[in-house]
Amino acid sequence: MAKEVTSKEENYSLWYNNLVVKADLAENSAVRGCMVIKPYGYAIWEKMQAVLDRMFKQTGHQNAYFPLFIPKSFLSREAEHVEGFAKECAVVTHHRLKANPDGPGVVVDPDARLEEELIVRPTSETIIWNSYKNWIKSYRDLPILCNQWANVVRWEMRTRLFLRTAEFLWQEGHTAHATAAEAMEEAERMVGVYADFARNYMAMPVVVGHKSAHERFAGALDTWCIEAMMQDGKALQAGTSHFLGQNFAKAFDVQFANRDGRLDYVWATSWGVSTRLMGALIMAHGDNNGLVLPPALAPVQVVMVPIYKGEDELSEMLAYMGRIGEELSAAGISFKIDGRDNIRSGFKFAEWELKGVPVRLTIGRRDIEAGVVETARRDTAEKFSLSRDGIAAQVRKLLDDIQSNMYRKALAFRDANTFKVDSWDEFKERVDDGGFMLCHWDGTTETEMKIQEETKATIRCIPVDSYVVKEEGKCIYSGKPSHQRVIFAKSY
Amino acid sequence: MAKEVTSKEENYSLWYNNLVVKADLAENSAVRGCMVIKPYGYAIWEKMQAVLDRMFKQTGHQNAYFPLFIPKSFLSREAEHVEGFAKECAVVTHHRLKANPDGPGVVVDPDARLEEELIVRPTSETIIWNSYKNWIKSYRDLPILCNQWANVVRWEMRTRLFLRTAEFLWQEGHTAHATAAEAMEEAERMVGVYADFARNYMAMPVVVGHKSAHERFAGALDTWCIEAMMQDGKALQAGTSHFLGQNFAKAFDVQFANRDGRLDYVWATSWGVSTRLMGALIMAHGDNNGLVLPPALAPVQVVMVPIYKGEDELSEMLAYMGRIGEELSAAGISFKIDGRDNIRSGFKFAEWELKGVPVRLTIGRRDIEAGVVETARRDTAEKFSLSRDGIAAQVRKLLDDIQSNMYRKALAFRDANTFKVDSWDEFKERVDDGGFMLCHWDGTTETEMKIQEETKATIRCIPVDSYVVKEEGKCIYSGKPSHQRVIFAKSY
Repeated sequence: MAKEVTSKEENYSLWYNNLVVKADLAENSAVRGCMVIKPYGYAIWEKMQAVLDRMFKQTGHQNAYFPLFIPKSFLSREAEHVEGFAKECAVVTHHRLKANPDGPGVVVDPDARLEEELIVRPTSETIIWNSYKNWIKSYRDLPILCNQWANVVRWEMRTRLFLRTAEFLWQEGHTAHATAAEAMEEAERMVGVYADFARNYMAMPVVVGHKSAHERFAGALDTWCIEAMMQDGKALQAGTSHFLGQNFAKAFDVQFANRDGRLDYVWATSWGVSTRLMGALIMAHGDNNGLVLPPALAPVQVVMVPIYKGEDELSEMLAYMGRIGEELSAAGISFKIDGRDNIRSGFKFAEWELKGVPVRLTIGRRDIEAGVVETARRDTAEKFSLSRDGIAAQVRKLLDDIQSNMYRKALAFRDANTFKVDSWDEFKERVDDGGFMLCHWDGTTETEMKIQEETKATIRCIPVDSYVVKEEGKCIYSGKPSHQRVIFAKSY
Repeated sequence: MAKEVTSKEENYSLWYNNLVVKADLAENSAVRGCMVIKPYGYAIWEKMQAVLDRMFKQTGHQNAYFPLFIPKSFLSREAEHVEGFAKECAVVTHHRLKANPDGPGVVVDPDARLEEELIVRPTSETIIWNSYKNWIKSYRDLPILCNQWANVVRWEMRTRLFLRTAEFLWQEGHTAHATAAEAMEEAERMVGVYADFARNYMAMPVVVGHKSAHERFAGALDTWCIEAMMQDGKALQAGTSHFLGQNFAKAFDVQFANRDGRLDYVWATSWGVSTRLMGALIMAHGDNNGLVLPPALAPVQVVMVPIYKGEDELSEMLAYMGRIGEELSAAGISFKIDGRDNIRSGFKFAEWELKGVPVRLTIGRRDIEAGVVETARRDTAEKFSLSRDGIAAQVRKLLDDIQSNMYRKALAFRDANTFKVDSWDEFKERVDDGGFMLCHWDGTTETEMKIQEETKATIRCIPVDSYVVKEEGKCIYSGKPSHQRVIFAKSY
């Protein structure tokens, strides 16, 4: 096999990087921290986008587009917000280059300095709320339910393909409401959409919960999140939804006349998922042979590889596979026929395994005569024969089975790596082995920070729909009383 | 009517701006030259994207994504390219803000200066060819047929919503080929896709042609374009496709082993259309009552307005319209029922006219009893009755008729405003009246520039599929011999 992958047991981090690069998903670019998303990687992202976009529209949202640039002064309007983003901003200071007077090339033209610097958006609350100010006069203008698909930039110092990049692609929903209750309901609805997407399309179990005050989005009153467990036992935050209260409405003076004719500030939410989901998808399911893609998001669900001798037999196989392909298409199944004549079958098998294609069909002369199709499923590596008759219905069933099996497998892994931990000694002993630790915590940022300093573990969330343990207990660190366990873990 | 539109006869430019803003398509933002695309405008852009994306995929292209930022030194690699873009670049120089030591707010942190400045992409040839260098070793790796949907920034001094903005959305195709012939064929194929899209979806006639050497893309050997005529007689360049020769391959040292095993530089094309198409769509069809959208791109194809007295009748109408809506949906027709109870019907009519919805259905009690539906078409303003039975098929036919009528009308307008001009005096006399002028030209940039300086008219293209007049003649300016007429016009 040409493109060997380091095993995840040997070096998990290198295994991940191998998969991203060797399966042709993405690569580093000449610009520090910025990635190139290659066609195969982008095709997966497009599938994610299509599903999410449909879910957003079904919940009443519309897409719009706001500027890439944010005037520097806007960032400072909301105190916590600027605190959260100032340290990682790409700043545009000039609008022109000119020929280098001292040699070849071009230099920044000092005469083209901007009056006010522009920040490349790290997130768009400020520029959007500055627009909403003009859109909202009365309760009749509410709610506003907008989403945008966009690129954003956060100048991270340590970057990793998909997981943490200086530029990334995402969607950001920004909604405006007449009441706090309605905005809170929206924030909860959207974290629910994310959980649904993660579970039913990515085949990835997630815990829905609230972030601790310390882990909240800069400017939010409450942050909901979905947290997933990767195969090294680390947690990955896969999506967040924020109840922003009236913070941004106050910062940008967005008031509306309510039903009683009185002026009030507008209530806000924002919510987003990003190309980080690509990293989650890879790490949640991949194995030492490559990606394992859930059928719901695989750009190619079925690959067909002919086993043949000579050109005549190849043409015959391709025609035969073409007819199978028509049946698959009619059943809504995407496929690819790998008819390359300069590459051995074994190499093709390895390549499509690396790319995570859920089902492989292999067909040789004997299979045609016997009326069967040799089938291999990527998730379990099982091989078996299907009958040629009614192939599409059988493959449909198989894809559905793979989708649900992948979820079950990931869920079993997570459950096997989730523990109740009741003492500080046990916590310190376990923390380097990975997994979710369900612990009592006294609810203070002080304790949270001390635990983080000593162990690098953080509170991933206060769970609301999985591992919810509401019971009286004592904080593992301070011994103070606690009424619910929270999830601690090391994370990406 | 609440939102009055200035007539285009009175002030064409103001009419255009009125339509964009009052139909809720877009608005200016707080950032100079950057627009906010509002949900209704973005919904039209999404329809354009969906159609174009399908066309690109049908012609073998895949989507990918390349970095927003381009190292400054990359721009200088191709001499003409940097010349073309250096004067309008947004330049990132720093990566951090810090608290202002002298007062409130934040300032750029001088310690966070980048070693090399980054340019916000004005177009992506350089960063993409720097990546292709690693993707291409042999002829087996070719062709590469990538497209990206992205935002780009060109620091234009005079901006107008959609037509010329500092930031705009576009797609840029970038392909790599083993031979010049194949790359030239690709450039021609893609301008053909654009012409097909403009004619059959935008209902907008375009002339396909070559740009003169002077009007070519910075770095191209040949630029194809589609040129449309707006209702003020000005030309608008709606899309371009470039044969780049080996310029970028040489600048980024991208060589491949050809079939004979010898190294050769790779041949390139690039092609793009942008949110400028939104401006073209508005100006090609709009009238003094607002937008006129072609059914193929209208987010809402049919609006239904109930005529009623009292709440009971309203509920009855809404139910009746709901059933019609189901029939329309089943026929693939998008619709909206305007059941707002706080707004008069006349106001609703005006609002949906402003928004350019192709068909309006009005239903009152008498219509229900008579089994008819009052119908108004936006393009001709005609009103007539359709029978309730088989309404979906009749509306389908009507939408198709509107689509082709809009094209015919725009084509007739263009033909009526296209003239053969044979003398310099006549040229100067006609040039301010607008329209396309078919003229002989001696083929030199010198003459082209002189004509432009004296009249502001430019060569829009050397046509290949409309108004092709291959005949011997004399250049209107220099009197030198010419073998084909070219199109001169003032343009956006």
